[in-house]
Amino acid sequence: MTFAFVGLGLMGSPMAVRLARAGHPLRVWNRTAAKCAAAVAAGATQAASAADAARGADIVFLCLSDSRAVEAAVFGPEGVAEGIGAGAVVVDFSSVAPDATRAFAARLKAERGAEWVDAPVSGGVAGAEAGTLAVMAGGDQAACARVEPYVKAMAARFTRMGPVGAGQTTKLCNQVIVGSLMCVIAEAARLAANAGIDALKLPEALSGGWADSKPLQICLPRMVKAIHDPPLGAAWTMLKDLDAARALAQRTNTPLPVSAAAAEVFRTLCAREGDEADALRIFALSAPRQGEHGS
Amino acid sequence: MTFAFVGLGLMGSPMAVRLARAGHPLRVWNRTAAKCAAAVAAGATQAASAADAARGADIVFLCLSDSRAVEAAVFGPEGVAEGIGAGAVVVDFSSVAPDATRAFAARLKAERGAEWVDAPVSGGVAGAEAGTLAVMAGGDQAACARVEPYVKAMAARFTRMGPVGAGQTTKLCNQVIVGSLMCVIAEAARLAANAGIDALKLPEALSGGWADSKPLQICLPRMVKAIHDPPLGAAWTMLKDLDAARALAQRTNTPLPVSAAAAEVFRTLCAREGDEADALRIFALSAPRQGEHGS
Repeated sequence: MTFAFVGLGLMGSPMAVRLARAGHPLRVWNRTAAKCAAAVAAGATQAASAADAARGADIVFLCLSDSRAVEAAVFGPEGVAEGIGAGAVVVDFSSVAPDATRAFAARLKAERGAEWVDAPVSGGVAGAEAGTLAVMAGGDQAACARVEPYVKAMAARFTRMGPVGAGQTTKLCNQVIVGSLMCVIAEAARLAANAGIDALKLPEALSGGWADSKPLQICLPRMVKAIHDPPLGAAWTMLKDLDAARALAQRTNTPLPVSAAAAEVFRTLCAREGDEADALRIFALSAPRQGEHGS
Repeated sequence: MTFAFVGLGLMGSPMAVRLARAGHPLRVWNRTAAKCAAAVAAGATQAASAADAARGADIVFLCLSDSRAVEAAVFGPEGVAEGIGAGAVVVDFSSVAPDATRAFAARLKAERGAEWVDAPVSGGVAGAEAGTLAVMAGGDQAACARVEPYVKAMAARFTRMGPVGAGQTTKLCNQVIVGSLMCVIAEAARLAANAGIDALKLPEALSGGWADSKPLQICLPRMVKAIHDPPLGAAWTMLKDLDAARALAQRTNTPLPVSAAAAEVFRTLCAREGDEADALRIFALSAPRQGEHGS
């Protein structure tokens, strides 16, 4: 088995490193070539283009930021589609709208005879580094079965949710929960602080209870201590997913009263601080005005 | 050490059973006497009144539904305050507004010289039965230290958050998270179902990821399968806590845009189905109209 990995950003790089360390022949490509360094140090070969990486590969992994980036890397000049062979499988770890995913899969099948498995992940950079990601997959049953053992080099869990697009739909459900959870953790932390409680005690106090979650343990301390370096993630990537969930909800007549409010919190953050603001700065949005009680 | 336990409802009964089984002398009282049966079978003695239960007890545990019930059981006729001795401690597991808690504590101290530790819990009936509850405590440091070993017969975790009222404030933070989480889990499940995904696969697919939590694993299947017997809990108890959080937020100038939306979801459920409706019926609120596509 020969593999390609395209897109070695914050998530992709540690995933490619794990795949390379598992001993599989691996060619990597990234638009900014320098980001391949860690994977190359772990044994991967740097390819000259996405097409070059995909040539002869049995499985081509993608980990990109959005639909446009996936379209460019696959169907653009020197893209994956130019190199991939019939019967190969693209496994797309990116978060992409379900409709766009189905269009990509149909086009790749028609043009090159290759399969598509959408395989968005949950678990963040820490999960990518530790290999504890959860993968939500959509695709042909046989294609999913074929890629699962290799995906497991990078993830603790691989669940096939249905045909192509089902993984992306599941990821939107995941983001509806995670984005809202981040907002209400920020609300709880601010309420505690404003009421005179040490908000940093909340993760331990609520540990093991119904309010507990990875975001509570990981995000709350970083929010309260204003640790944004490295950032958890850009606010716009969460907003993109919540807006995609809302678009799907509109088409399927699904009310989302609570996660819609969460989307507007991230939109407010993007409007005030720019798209690249760390998502955890939602906590800063509710900071008391300086000198409110003193001036 | 001698104990009393007042309020043996869905939560209180399994807690009192655990305390009795730990071998401590325990007198129990409940307004509806029949609900004491399980605790009595576990070795507790049934008292004739809350005052009778509290007489001579070193620690009086309360587990009641709201501020009014606590006030009646403690300061009403034949209430705890009539029996409790100076130096004894009331440990209140109920969820009560922080202001009301501080008033109860001050009054009990002034009238009887007894201490108050507010100790609301998270973990639900299953946590009460398994002894895995998380207790968020507020009170005098010495009083908290004195009661902690005995509380641990009923809970896995006891965290002192500050002076009297701090436990209740923490519980409101907990409910801001849990109430909102229940709503967005319902939204994610409905979105999945409406988009053609098997919503019952979500807990496994998201297990171990950032969207994972006890409510995801416990509530989602019950929502989707419409299992409301036994109920998870009454919608109004969640609404009461979310409204108390909002009242605290108003006083402390804390914006709660996301959990305020969650409160309105529970209020909608109470308006449509009554206060006693199972909280998990929030999922039913977004059910597609019968025959929508067929008629």
